[in-house]
Amino acid sequence: MADHLNCDLTSLTPLQLFEKVTEQGEKVRALKAGKAPKDEIDAAVRMLLSLKQSYKIATGQDYQAGLPPKDLVLINNSTTKEEDEDFVDPWTVQTSNAKGVDYDKLIVRFGSSKIDTDLINRIERAIGQKPHRFLRRGIFFSHRDMDQILNAYENKKSFYLYTGRGPSSQAMHVGHLIPFIFTKWLQEVFDVPLVIQLTDDEKYLWKDLTTEKAYEYAKENARDIIACGFDVNKTFIFSDLDYLGTSTGFYRNIVKVQKHVTFNQVKGIFGFTDSDCIGKISFPAIQAAPSFSSSFPQIFNGKENIQCLIPCAIDQDPYFRMTRDVAPRIGQPKPALLHSIFFPALQGAQTKMSASDPNSSIFLTDTPKQIKTKINKHAFSGGRDTIEEHRKYGGNCDVDVSFMYLTFFLEDDDKLEQLKQAYTSGELLTGELKKVLIETLQPLIAAHQERRKQVTDEVVKLFMTPRKLAFEF
Amino acid sequence: MADHLNCDLTSLTPLQLFEKVTEQGEKVRALKAGKAPKDEIDAAVRMLLSLKQSYKIATGQDYQAGLPPKDLVLINNSTTKEEDEDFVDPWTVQTSNAKGVDYDKLIVRFGSSKIDTDLINRIERAIGQKPHRFLRRGIFFSHRDMDQILNAYENKKSFYLYTGRGPSSQAMHVGHLIPFIFTKWLQEVFDVPLVIQLTDDEKYLWKDLTTEKAYEYAKENARDIIACGFDVNKTFIFSDLDYLGTSTGFYRNIVKVQKHVTFNQVKGIFGFTDSDCIGKISFPAIQAAPSFSSSFPQIFNGKENIQCLIPCAIDQDPYFRMTRDVAPRIGQPKPALLHSIFFPALQGAQTKMSASDPNSSIFLTDTPKQIKTKINKHAFSGGRDTIEEHRKYGGNCDVDVSFMYLTFFLEDDDKLEQLKQAYTSGELLTGELKKVLIETLQPLIAAHQERRKQVTDEVVKLFMTPRKLAFEF
Repeated sequence: MADHLNCDLTSLTPLQLFEKVTEQGEKVRALKAGKAPKDEIDAAVRMLLSLKQSYKIATGQDYQAGLPPKDLVLINNSTTKEEDEDFVDPWTVQTSNAKGVDYDKLIVRFGSSKIDTDLINRIERAIGQKPHRFLRRGIFFSHRDMDQILNAYENKKSFYLYTGRGPSSQAMHVGHLIPFIFTKWLQEVFDVPLVIQLTDDEKYLWKDLTTEKAYEYAKENARDIIACGFDVNKTFIFSDLDYLGTSTGFYRNIVKVQKHVTFNQVKGIFGFTDSDCIGKISFPAIQAAPSFSSSFPQIFNGKENIQCLIPCAIDQDPYFRMTRDVAPRIGQPKPALLHSIFFPALQGAQTKMSASDPNSSIFLTDTPKQIKTKINKHAFSGGRDTIEEHRKYGGNCDVDVSFMYLTFFLEDDDKLEQLKQAYTSGELLTGELKKVLIETLQPLIAAHQERRKQVTDEVVKLFMTPRKLAFEF
Repeated sequence: MADHLNCDLTSLTPLQLFEKVTEQGEKVRALKAGKAPKDEIDAAVRMLLSLKQSYKIATGQDYQAGLPPKDLVLINNSTTKEEDEDFVDPWTVQTSNAKGVDYDKLIVRFGSSKIDTDLINRIERAIGQKPHRFLRRGIFFSHRDMDQILNAYENKKSFYLYTGRGPSSQAMHVGHLIPFIFTKWLQEVFDVPLVIQLTDDEKYLWKDLTTEKAYEYAKENARDIIACGFDVNKTFIFSDLDYLGTSTGFYRNIVKVQKHVTFNQVKGIFGFTDSDCIGKISFPAIQAAPSFSSSFPQIFNGKENIQCLIPCAIDQDPYFRMTRDVAPRIGQPKPALLHSIFFPALQGAQTKMSASDPNSSIFLTDTPKQIKTKINKHAFSGGRDTIEEHRKYGGNCDVDVSFMYLTFFLEDDDKLEQLKQAYTSGELLTGELKKVLIETLQPLIAAHQERRKQVTDEVVKLFMTPRKLAFEF
């Protein structure tokens, strides 16, 4: 039976395998020392050899006593799902908690740093402006090396921004805007250039889509992104399917990343299996490469090694942990990161919103009436079952989706605080809170739609044309 | 012990695993039918489940009784090394036979077709010329769908040629010229366009090279290829590192191939492991994509679905078996192939020549004196130990490398036959045979060097510029 169990070794992490080999080695030594019967020792040795082989298959390295598979563990560990833990990777976000993912735990597991008051104050000093509400309210809550970006900025050394989107459908929802709203603010306050990757190749690989359709979605999504108000002189938006074939630097960086990442590593980081297509397996390099300014020779006028800052939702971090691991080995600076929490679905904060379920979110194409109906009908309420109970015990802002949405979209800190107190005390009813949200979102979305109308095909083309951006480094 | 063996299942082919599952299933049924003790049945069932799991891991599919893993077997089978068999894949050619690889067996294993007298005669009729000596002498010995190419050609439907080279060093040897000499002849007699891929990205991924160095080798090798006399109006030579960034069609085809090939498949075809980098794992798609004319929108003026014919050494066939498997699933025609035998090393036909061992081959940069010394000193002889024995028993042309080289480079059929008879009868001594080879190669290489000198940087640039080629389809 022990031998038989051995056959499930494929499900163990490299570290678990390492521990098993070590343990079995000790067993063999103990048997030998105790002069156990020969066939017992032989069986234990065979088991040891088999474990060592499994370890080699899993890690690509020979077992070395006392040397755990460090790099792999550091990377793998972060996406391993443990009992009672939230699961977060670029394709799945799962939590059983109605308040949403436990972000403090995620920071520990991912090995990133919390955006604390000190850092927010430092940003305020650097830019001489009030920090964005997403910073003030912990919506961007985690970072990597943001202090280095600020050190450099304070010494008049600039950087560039990189963010992106996977264009899986024509329609974007309000949650999709979060990284773009924040990135636009960063572009303004730091006055830096920005590249936005539309991973139409990724969507082709993962979904049942043609390359033509994925590319069409990319261009449609670009329109919504442009409508957020980016500076055309400082912003380059690109589709992978297009840009890979028009850049002399992008593929070179992709192949460099691809040379320095093994299947074992992407298996650990992204959970790929042997039956995944080779396109998925090599894709992480394509999301990694825009972190290096040499991927954009036209954009940065051939200037290499410009520091990169990536604002993104925390589920994209695995790509950039991998990128940061590879960067020094290919002579490139590690990108810095700012991570946001997930935008909750109308039904509750247990999962991310999905573009494929029209009732899970408010879409950028929704009419004022649709917005009203959706919020009234679907927004999960933290209020009590009856008005009487609500008045007596108050509502729960921690799980109330309308309140959560207001933290994202209501600019006025005082008003938000008043709403929170009134709702928690029971003074404000669910319907009244929803009304505030409806009245906040309706004009925001109407204004977005108005701006989107101004985005002509020519404007989209201009944003998507590789050209030198305005910058001073 | 039986359970323990089970742990080495990773070394089995999918077909062998399939057979093991089937066998174990029968064993379980027999035990149950024979009312064997419960724990014996339980152990056999556990073993069956474990085997099924291994099968799933290896093939990505659930085991289905009576349905062997057909596609995979067809592909995998071909590169599986069996007892006493030659080993052939794109990186290794091994045989224990001094006559070289058993090509008839390879045709059976790879599932290609022999180029027989009928096909050679048909080519002769189609082109109205004597077939190239490489065809007359079985140097191009195997094909896939060449009859379809001829059917189409006879009906005035044209095709394009695709061949390539991995630029692993500056210096090319005479063996490297074989596909190019033959391709040039095909281009002339069929009057068709040609694309030549220089896989500098592959060499970067596999060797200890920078991208810059690999690209430099590509350009140097292009010079030698151009010196073979290709028609500049009908030939496009490209480096992957360069062309991927300048073509709107190439990457789209690459990603399409990458979507339709799993890691399991490339593991079976190319022997990749989990510790290989993701660049190697996805590379086969990059060698596959030039088989589709839509990878070259500028070259073919946007014309898609032009039939492709690939002349190459047989060790490259795994790439194109994979390509032919994918082609119909992405709406593209399967490329046809013409396979050559390997050019033997000076030391004997057991292995392919290597560009990294200067004494294993005659280089295109060798002086007349170096050619003479190398042949006299290193060319493996099929002659006898003493002159007396040689006169009495004769030499063996089947293993004599000088004679083999003459079959590649001596155009005159009658003279070759005379040499063979004289050598076999013992009339011609080894030194005399070597002299004929030296006198054949010296002027050929001198002429190549002369033509190479004429290839200016401008000419290289022109061949490597994406532009419409002259063709009529």
